[in-house]
Amino acid sequence: MRNIRLLLEYDGTRYHGWQRQKNAATVQETVEAALARLTGEEVRLIGSGRTDAGVHARGQVANFRTPSRIPLKAFHEGLNSMLPDDIAVLEAQEAPLNFHARKSAQAKTYEYRILNRGSRSPLHHHHAWWVAQPLNVAAMAQAAATLPGEHDFSAFQASGSGIRNPRRRILAARWETREGGRLTFTITATGFLRGMVRGLTGTMVEIGRGKAQPGLLEELLASGHRHLAGPTAPPQGLYLVEVVY
Amino acid sequence: MRNIRLLLEYDGTRYHGWQRQKNAATVQETVEAALARLTGEEVRLIGSGRTDAGVHARGQVANFRTPSRIPLKAFHEGLNSMLPDDIAVLEAQEAPLNFHARKSAQAKTYEYRILNRGSRSPLHHHHAWWVAQPLNVAAMAQAAATLPGEHDFSAFQASGSGIRNPRRRILAARWETREGGRLTFTITATGFLRGMVRGLTGTMVEIGRGKAQPGLLEELLASGHRHLAGPTAPPQGLYLVEVVY
Repeated sequence: MRNIRLLLEYDGTRYHGWQRQKNAATVQETVEAALARLTGEEVRLIGSGRTDAGVHARGQVANFRTPSRIPLKAFHEGLNSMLPDDIAVLEAQEAPLNFHARKSAQAKTYEYRILNRGSRSPLHHHHAWWVAQPLNVAAMAQAAATLPGEHDFSAFQASGSGIRNPRRRILAARWETREGGRLTFTITATGFLRGMVRGLTGTMVEIGRGKAQPGLLEELLASGHRHLAGPTAPPQGLYLVEVVY
Repeated sequence: MRNIRLLLEYDGTRYHGWQRQKNAATVQETVEAALARLTGEEVRLIGSGRTDAGVHARGQVANFRTPSRIPLKAFHEGLNSMLPDDIAVLEAQEAPLNFHARKSAQAKTYEYRILNRGSRSPLHHHHAWWVAQPLNVAAMAQAAATLPGEHDFSAFQASGSGIRNPRRRILAARWETREGGRLTFTITATGFLRGMVRGLTGTMVEIGRGKAQPGLLEELLASGHRHLAGPTAPPQGLYLVEVVY
C-alpha cells in the first residue's frame, strides 16, 4: 500500500466547496473521480480541511492510500490532464503510511484579498472582495496586531458548526497594501474554525470603514459575542495558501 | 451635443474581441447596448483600438457623442449597474467635441503575462500564458532591449491585416519577473499593428526557450521575414493597460 500526498491549486468559483456532497459539484469529488479513472479503483481523498463554496486554494494538501503501482509522475501530469482547467495538481509525492492530510497538519495560512477602489473590477470579480468605500488600513492593521496568541474564536465561527473547543492559536496576522487598491490579509494559525477568516475579515473591514474601533476585535475575542461582529466577508476573496506539516 | 469619454476595464474571456461583429458577442456591442438602455438613443462607441478575442483591458478608452443631458455619474455608476460583471466603467468624463478615442491617441501600453512554472494554474488560466519549460529571462530581456526606436514590424503583424505603413515607434519595452514564476512584458508604442504584441512575445519566448538567439528580434525587424518569427502568443495573457492622449 502506498500513501500519496498531493499539493492542489483550484479556482473555487464553480464548486460547492471542497467536501463531497450530494447533488453539487465539489473539488474533492472531482479529484476523486479523476483518480478513479487513472487507477481503476475507488479512491478516498483526505483533504487538510474543507474550503467553502467559492473559496480558492493555492496550496491545498490531500492524501490517499492506493495499492496502485502507477509512477508518481502519473499522479501529477497524468492527473492534470484528466482534471478540469480550474483544478490542478502542483506536486505529487510518496508520504509515510501514517501521514494524514488533516490530522498531521501543524499550521495553515490563508489569504484574504480585497479590492478597495471606486469601481468594481471585471478582472478581479471572482478573486477578491470589492469594497468601494475607502478603508483605513492603519486601523485594520492595528486590529490585526491583537490577533497573535491563543484566543476563543466563538464570535467568528460560522453558525451551526458546533466545534467543541473554539480556542485557536494565531501565529501571524498582517495586512499588506499594493498598488491599485489591493489589500491582502494573511493569517497563519495552528487551526481555524469554519468561517473564521471571513468573520475576522468582515469585522476588520467594519473597523476600516470607521464603523467600529480597532479595539473591537480584542473585545470580541474576550467576550465571544457573535452578534457584535461585522458581516462575514464573501468567499471569493479567500485563498488557502499553505498547509505546514 | 456632448462628447463623453469612458475608461473601461474588461475580462475578454467571453468576448470575440472589442469590435462589433455579426453573430458574436463583443465588448463594443455590449457597452453600446447598455448605453442605449441608459439614454434611450442609439449610441455609436469609438474605441481607442480593437482588442482580439480573449484579450483583456485594464484601461481601454472609448468615446461617444450624445444629446443626452444625463449626469456624468450615470455614465459611470448607472452604466456599471447595466453592464455584465466582466465589463466595467472606471471613469466617465466630458471631453472636448473633437476628442476621438482612436485618432487622438498618442501612445498605448500593453502588458503580456506569462506563468513560467511546471504545473498549469487554475487561478491564472484565463489571465496568463502558461509556459512549462524554464525560460531564460535574461535572453528575453536582451531581445526586448533592441525594441525601442522606430522599426518596420511587418514580421509581427497578424496575417491579412493589410496595414499600409508597418513602421511603428516603440517608446519602452521591458520584462519583469515576480515570485511564483510570473513574467510580465510591458511595451509602450505610438501605435501597434494587429497581433504585434503577441507576435513579439511569441518570438521572445522562443528566445527564452533557447530555440533562437536574442539577436533574432533585431534581424526580424530588419528583414521583415515573418516565417522566421516564433508562434504567436495566445490571447489570454494580453492586457491593454493604458492609452495616452
